[in-house]
Amino acid sequence: MSDATRSALPEDPWPEVRPEAARRLMAAAVESFAARGYHATTTRDIATAAGMSPAALYVHFPAKSAVLFAISRSGHERTLKMVRTTIEEHEDPVDATRALVENFVAWHAKRHVIARVVQHELDALTADDHKVVLELRRGTEGLVRDLITRGVEAGAFTVPDVRTAARAVLSLGIDVARWYSPSSKPSPEVLGKQYGELVLNMLGQH
Amino acid sequence: MSDATRSALPEDPWPEVRPEAARRLMAAAVESFAARGYHATTTRDIATAAGMSPAALYVHFPAKSAVLFAISRSGHERTLKMVRTTIEEHEDPVDATRALVENFVAWHAKRHVIARVVQHELDALTADDHKVVLELRRGTEGLVRDLITRGVEAGAFTVPDVRTAARAVLSLGIDVARWYSPSSKPSPEVLGKQYGELVLNMLGQH
Repeated sequence: MSDATRSALPEDPWPEVRPEAARRLMAAAVESFAARGYHATTTRDIATAAGMSPAALYVHFPAKSAVLFAISRSGHERTLKMVRTTIEEHEDPVDATRALVENFVAWHAKRHVIARVVQHELDALTADDHKVVLELRRGTEGLVRDLITRGVEAGAFTVPDVRTAARAVLSLGIDVARWYSPSSKPSPEVLGKQYGELVLNMLGQH
Repeated sequence: MSDATRSALPEDPWPEVRPEAARRLMAAAVESFAARGYHATTTRDIATAAGMSPAALYVHFPAKSAVLFAISRSGHERTLKMVRTTIEEHEDPVDATRALVENFVAWHAKRHVIARVVQHELDALTADDHKVVLELRRGTEGLVRDLITRGVEAGAFTVPDVRTAARAVLSLGIDVARWYSPSSKPSPEVLGKQYGELVLNMLGQH
C-alpha cells in the first residue's frame, strides 16, 4: 500500500469487520479502486496489494464486487448509525442539526478516500447490493428530513422545501470527500464547525 | 450510444468544438467513461462508439487522455465564463449571488453526466493538463470568493470564513451532478431557484 494512501486512510476504518484478513483486503481494495477505478482493478491486484494469494481472497469474498459491497455497506451503515445517534443525543432540533453537520462533515473529511470510492463506484454494485445501499441512504435522508421538519414545526427553521433542504445539508457533507485532501485547511473538526454555522443559517435559523 | 446516455446528455454540449467528428468522439468518450470508468476504456471503444476507426480518432486526439482533457477543459472554461458573465450582469452582490447559484445549479443538473465524468477522472489527466484545469477552477473559486467578500463589505452577508463559504457555495452546485438524474424532481431551473434561496440564507443575507 502506498504511503500516500496509507496516511489518507483513517486508522482502523472497519473495526467491526472480522477477521483481520478481510479488513486488510478491504483496505487494499480501497487503494486500488482509488488509484485505477473499480473496473480496471482485478481480484489479483487486490490480493497482491494485501500480501495474499488470489485464492486467499476468495475465502473472504466471493467476487470483486463483494469487496466493494463490504466497503460500501459498512460506510453507509456507520453513517446512518452516526446520524441516528447524534439526533437522539440532542432534543433541540437546532442543537441536533449543528452536531449532525459537525460530525457528518468531519467524518467525510477524515474518510475522504473511502467515501470517494464508495460514491464513485455505486453503479458497479450488483442490483441486490445496490438496493441494500440505497435503503441505507434513504434511512439517512429520512432522518435528516424528519429533523428539518421538526425544526420547521418548532418555528426554528424556515426553508423553501424540506426535501431540497435535506438534500443540500447532506450534499454539503458528502461533497467534502470530493475536495478534501490531507493538506487541506482547515482541520476536519474546524471545517465541521464552520459548516455547522453555515447550515444553521441556510435553514433560516432564527 | 445508449438511449439512456443520449437522453441524459444536453443537446449540443460542445458547440465550440470543431470539426463535428471531434464532438462525436467526445460524446462517445463521455458515454464510455461514465459506463466503465476512464481506465477500463480504450481508444478503440471510443472510436467504435462514435462509429469511427481507431485511426480516425488519432486524427483528432493524440491519445485517450487528450479526449478527456478536451471534455474537462471545455466544461471548466464554460463554467468560468458563465460565472464571470453572471457576476458582471448584476451590480448588487445579493442579486449576483442569487443568479450565479441559479445558473450554476441548473447547469450541473442539466450536464450531470459530463460533469460527473469530469469530476471523477480529474486524476487521470496528464500533469500539464491537470494544471490547466486547476487554473480554471481557481479562476472560478476566486470570482466567487471576491463576490462574497464584496457582499460582506457591503454589509449584506455575514459568514464565518469567506474561503469556506465560497467552497460551500460551489460544492452545493457541483454535488448536484452526483445525485441528479433525468427522473429527479424538481426541474434544473426550480432546483436552481430553491438553492439560490438556501445559499442567500447560508451567507447570512440581511
